[in-house]
Amino acid sequence: MVASGLGRVVVGVEDPDPRVAGSGLAALRDAGIEVTMSPEPDDARAVDPGYFRHRETGLPTVTLKYAMTLDGSVAAADGSSRWVSGEESRADVHALRSTMDAVVIGAGTLRGDDPTLDVRVGTMERQPRPIVIAGEQPLPQGARIWGRDPLVIAPADLEVPAGDVAVVPAVDGRPDPVEAARAIAGRGYYDLLLEGGPLLAAAWWHADLINRGVAYVAGKIGGGRGVSAFDGVFASVDDADDIRITNLRQLGNDVRIEFE
Amino acid sequence: MVASGLGRVVVGVEDPDPRVAGSGLAALRDAGIEVTMSPEPDDARAVDPGYFRHRETGLPTVTLKYAMTLDGSVAAADGSSRWVSGEESRADVHALRSTMDAVVIGAGTLRGDDPTLDVRVGTMERQPRPIVIAGEQPLPQGARIWGRDPLVIAPADLEVPAGDVAVVPAVDGRPDPVEAARAIAGRGYYDLLLEGGPLLAAAWWHADLINRGVAYVAGKIGGGRGVSAFDGVFASVDDADDIRITNLRQLGNDVRIEFE
Repeated sequence: MVASGLGRVVVGVEDPDPRVAGSGLAALRDAGIEVTMSPEPDDARAVDPGYFRHRETGLPTVTLKYAMTLDGSVAAADGSSRWVSGEESRADVHALRSTMDAVVIGAGTLRGDDPTLDVRVGTMERQPRPIVIAGEQPLPQGARIWGRDPLVIAPADLEVPAGDVAVVPAVDGRPDPVEAARAIAGRGYYDLLLEGGPLLAAAWWHADLINRGVAYVAGKIGGGRGVSAFDGVFASVDDADDIRITNLRQLGNDVRIEFE
Repeated sequence: MVASGLGRVVVGVEDPDPRVAGSGLAALRDAGIEVTMSPEPDDARAVDPGYFRHRETGLPTVTLKYAMTLDGSVAAADGSSRWVSGEESRADVHALRSTMDAVVIGAGTLRGDDPTLDVRVGTMERQPRPIVIAGEQPLPQGARIWGRDPLVIAPADLEVPAGDVAVVPAVDGRPDPVEAARAIAGRGYYDLLLEGGPLLAAAWWHADLINRGVAYVAGKIGGGRGVSAFDGVFASVDDADDIRITNLRQLGNDVRIEFE
């Protein structure tokens, strides 16, 4: 910009990264360029909100994803959930994954579903890194995830067949949610898709780590109590958190509800 | 039609009521009018499906209504549910009630919510009759429903402060769902809105009495296990019933999903 001979620069918003904050603007001013700040910094932040969130808080941007029956079960009581949602919704999940830096699951989902968490539909060039939030129990050594170089977040060093392990402080034998999120973002994964299960979803929800959600409400009725999207107890209606529905559409015979 | 001198009459569909079936058509033919049957009787049936269903099966047309959080609870664990859904959804429920012959609830909902089940928004000229499906326990004598001339369906004669009691055969101390539905339709209430609770919804769902549903999915997250729309256990994902989503729209910050 200095070399181009510009007379005036309007800055959308300052980079909050402490390593660069203000130094670029000082260089412009030193070169005699008039530097003014935009009166609408939020417009500039909106170009890459995850970046600003991370630079300011050290936390990633987390999108929760779950699929449930029209009467509210993410799985039946025996844990079975293949397939609650339809083919179009499942393809949409792959599209969602392809926009993410990482896909995060808990050890229970790893044990129960043995997922690969890769993008298998549409553009497959960008594969999110699989991340497993582990507890104190050993992880299944034969799981398919080991073929995908996963990052394991654990409360203590764990033997894993492949990938990396990051040890973070624990609460009740499980990684503290905020510490886990911080460790993940610290490794450069800023946009995370949280794919369950209910224990992890509840821990991250109540730690205020979830910024956005996509719920697939399937055209199926379970007809009784199954497994809820969030573990723990919804004690009183006053405890419910208000969210804002930002996008709604029908996908095949399912309904896709995006919220924040 | 005979007096008008018509030469030919095309009949959409025959009236299945055994008291009239065929006699009107015979009178037309006797008067020399050519009578032919429509090749598309389903089009004529679609004008008033509830009438045909009742005449052919003795059963009413039942619409299930429930409101749940975006994570699937119709109430919190303590039973509180005011208000899961927003103002627009609640107004929509009143519009839905105004199209019905009767609104049906179980004794648990009567005890817990003390509802009046009347139409309080929009056109209030047509008020559905309130119907309570009772068990063997006495009903609360001070409930507001008694001011609305309710019909009580019970497994044995019950003392009630107002309204009528119809006794139907019971299963496990509760009115048999099919017998209850038959008794209601037999009194001329063909279009019923089933407003819960979970015990009644499950009993009628598994007895195949529910023809249609309206789910209000609210812009709220309970964040844990609350009360499910259907009582009992959703044992395995293979037990889920496929429904068809027939209408989808956003109502304020809620989602309205109609299905059959």
